[in-house]
Amino acid sequence: MNGARALLETLVAHEVDTCFMNPGTSEMHFVAALDDVTAMRSVLCLFEGVATGAADGFARLAGRPAAVLLHLGPGLGNGLANLHNARRAHSPLVAVVGDHATTHWKYDAQLQSDIETVARNVSTFVHTSLSTESLSSDAAAAVAAAVGAPGSVATLILPADVSWSEGASPVVGARAVPVARPVDTTELDGAAAALRGSGPCAVLVGGRACTGTALERAAAIATATGAKLLAETFPARLERGAGRPPVERLGYLAEFTAMQLDGIAHLVLVDAASPVSFFAYPGKPSDLVPEGCQVHTVAGPGDDVDGALEALAYLVGATPDQTPRQQAGPSGMPRGTLDAAAVAAVIGQLLPEGAIVSDEGNTSGLFVSGATAGSPPHDWLCLAGGAIGQGLPVALGAAIACPDRRVVALEADGSSLYTPQAWWSMARAGCDVTTVLLNNGSYAILNLELDRVGAERPGPRAKDMLDLGRPDIDFVSLARGLGVPAERATTADELAAALSRSFATPGPSVVEVPVPSIL
Amino acid sequence: MNGARALLETLVAHEVDTCFMNPGTSEMHFVAALDDVTAMRSVLCLFEGVATGAADGFARLAGRPAAVLLHLGPGLGNGLANLHNARRAHSPLVAVVGDHATTHWKYDAQLQSDIETVARNVSTFVHTSLSTESLSSDAAAAVAAAVGAPGSVATLILPADVSWSEGASPVVGARAVPVARPVDTTELDGAAAALRGSGPCAVLVGGRACTGTALERAAAIATATGAKLLAETFPARLERGAGRPPVERLGYLAEFTAMQLDGIAHLVLVDAASPVSFFAYPGKPSDLVPEGCQVHTVAGPGDDVDGALEALAYLVGATPDQTPRQQAGPSGMPRGTLDAAAVAAVIGQLLPEGAIVSDEGNTSGLFVSGATAGSPPHDWLCLAGGAIGQGLPVALGAAIACPDRRVVALEADGSSLYTPQAWWSMARAGCDVTTVLLNNGSYAILNLELDRVGAERPGPRAKDMLDLGRPDIDFVSLARGLGVPAERATTADELAAALSRSFATPGPSVVEVPVPSIL
Repeated sequence: MNGARALLETLVAHEVDTCFMNPGTSEMHFVAALDDVTAMRSVLCLFEGVATGAADGFARLAGRPAAVLLHLGPGLGNGLANLHNARRAHSPLVAVVGDHATTHWKYDAQLQSDIETVARNVSTFVHTSLSTESLSSDAAAAVAAAVGAPGSVATLILPADVSWSEGASPVVGARAVPVARPVDTTELDGAAAALRGSGPCAVLVGGRACTGTALERAAAIATATGAKLLAETFPARLERGAGRPPVERLGYLAEFTAMQLDGIAHLVLVDAASPVSFFAYPGKPSDLVPEGCQVHTVAGPGDDVDGALEALAYLVGATPDQTPRQQAGPSGMPRGTLDAAAVAAVIGQLLPEGAIVSDEGNTSGLFVSGATAGSPPHDWLCLAGGAIGQGLPVALGAAIACPDRRVVALEADGSSLYTPQAWWSMARAGCDVTTVLLNNGSYAILNLELDRVGAERPGPRAKDMLDLGRPDIDFVSLARGLGVPAERATTADELAAALSRSFATPGPSVVEVPVPSIL
Repeated sequence: MNGARALLETLVAHEVDTCFMNPGTSEMHFVAALDDVTAMRSVLCLFEGVATGAADGFARLAGRPAAVLLHLGPGLGNGLANLHNARRAHSPLVAVVGDHATTHWKYDAQLQSDIETVARNVSTFVHTSLSTESLSSDAAAAVAAAVGAPGSVATLILPADVSWSEGASPVVGARAVPVARPVDTTELDGAAAALRGSGPCAVLVGGRACTGTALERAAAIATATGAKLLAETFPARLERGAGRPPVERLGYLAEFTAMQLDGIAHLVLVDAASPVSFFAYPGKPSDLVPEGCQVHTVAGPGDDVDGALEALAYLVGATPDQTPRQQAGPSGMPRGTLDAAAVAAVIGQLLPEGAIVSDEGNTSGLFVSGATAGSPPHDWLCLAGGAIGQGLPVALGAAIACPDRRVVALEADGSSLYTPQAWWSMARAGCDVTTVLLNNGSYAILNLELDRVGAERPGPRAKDMLDLGRPDIDFVSLARGLGVPAERATTADELAAALSRSFATPGPSVVEVPVPSIL
């Protein structure tokens, strides 16, 4: 069989059975092989950043990698920002980048570029497969690298002739199970001693400690020791809602984080980085750990998080019944005109059980997290790498991974416009995604940042660069153009009705909500 | 003054007075300085690929670089595909990529990445400015690199603290004039001998030989010696139309190029690469130079093209009056139903004098070049690097460079969806851009390529990946959503009326034309 078919069979044999793609000529054999390997689901994307972001979203929910198929260096470039986010989210992902035939390289044809160099920036594994015979084992190695602890992006570069030539055979065999690094007992003992001691402590969870038993144990440890339980600012996936451990996320603003950590003498990190400011500001510290506070890293990204928390719970005497549980509610639907807080309250009342929220609502979405704390249990997906433009693609991928759950993409006007093409793929794939498009007509966060970085007296020309008016963007028209039903809600009643309709209707829809900027 | 202001003043002093931008927090001082340096025009883009493509289009028309302002590694990633195209077009371009403050790097905050590595792939100059005092001279060096022969992308990485700190002063002084490499007389003599000889010759022009006196001289040389005049497949800018030298471009399909070069014994290259296939195909040669044909490179990208052609004209005795001139016409407006050929004929009848055509029409646009050969003089901008998604951004940049000329973006459905956000910037900047959106509901070129690469019996799952239906995309709705007036034309009369209205109306508009695929 040819390389392409063996590659697909190998991927499927290793449980990589979903591929988000934007193919070109050099990928045609991969595309043709889809009819031979029907176990591989393919999702067409109109822009590569949609494909890479969707694979990230898929991995966050499915816990296993999807593949993406990209067209040479420029295709990889278009997908790079969301690969950056995937890297930061530790999402396992196999990027297959088609390349010219090896015999064609020397001619420096127009699309020739240095793919490996660009891929290296986001990948733990970069390999150009140079023979059809070795392609399948290269693919198996890519999957193994992607699922290793922690998850990461593996990039397999696939020259067209390696893909089209005969002589390949698939590598079948179980996907490698990542082996986590064992727990560092010195750090663990130090953390346990601190938690048992009298100084104010905080347990900061991130990564895999934001879900499942790990989160429950971390919460029980905090309760048992009187420590504060915090989560990193932008976890890749946070389980929350009624009945789950309530956890406060660190603020995006350094000033806010400083308040949250004020007076903490011991900070226990569980799969979370030591808190730093998202950006630097003149005259302000980047390191947000309070002076004199001791940091204990009981588990990092590649470590055995469950093992560390089990050991720590034992050492401090925390028991499962000490896991705090979020109360449901409050109930009460707002009425009348909409502002950011009212939008949040409506969502909080209606969020369906098992919902997956892809949060890129930025300033206008700031209140939604609080308003949904007591909503039925749900997942919350954040902007793990800080590169705007992942919200809609991640929602697409999450919906493909979890077809039985409602996905809510909480979007802002500016953010949505990096990758609006995701809407079309949601429509084609029949994804149950409700986009709540919070439209305040500006890059509102930058108006705040312009002030925070100390730019003096910003004038009209500067402010014009942060304004999304002239012309106003009509998201209802835009979404309909991409094949997704859309409507606009201007009151709480309209929003509640629109969301109820959307949640009850299979497939995607967009609800645009004009809101005044909160700043 | 702070670094940001000095940087802007330095850029303006070096004739870089237009900046296409999508800024973030780390670029806020650059944005704030726009009110101090009002000679810098700033154009806000909703996506970075729009900014980089626009700067490419600007350079192709203005002959000097624009700046782009991008937000860290992910912003550069989003702009990368069109920087690839700019690199291939030899467009001078200064990319300013904001970075975290130098003091922030060690914390590996979420948006931290290796910007230099990614930039190197597309840039001849990559430099991270490490002090406010040296920022202006670094900027001057970047401009010098960009405008060097041939033009290229220069990337200046600007840490936030270098931008916000005081102590900078602008570097004023004329922009460096690029010094072209002198002519290689051996190659020149060989070419002259061949052209004077009896074997069949072709002169292949590319790059700067596609405009002005260079093109006229090359055409005169061909006439004087009986050689065939050809242009490279995708010139960055080709001057054509009634009264200008008629020149046939090499075909995109290797089979077609082979026919064009059949029997040629001597191929004279003037700022053009030796012809190679765009992609490789199983069992077919990549090198398209006929066997036994001798190639003479009288000028390459960094060479003195005008000098080489002047010398060659002298050696073969070609005189200015031998420059062939394209006849106007034919006239005659088609009527009735529209197919790709009828669309082309309508455009050919109505194209305004001095128009600039940004051609990303792909298969459906194939006939437009022929139909406009005798239209009033105009410029034709091609997909120089082969990375789809440049058409609308290049049109935006061309319109900013030439506000007195009508720009026609000849777009295909699939191509337009990589960077549709360009429409909004056209509306905001009041650009006179008419987009003709040829909608055949598919990646039609890939249906052809699927066959050409020898993929056997493509099945329904493969074909589904090349189909842009389910749901159909409504470009009228999409463009209106982005603030651009749009209408749909389904007959030749409707198209003629719509184009006439658009050409007579200031500002952008979109005309969607449903056409059957030509394949």
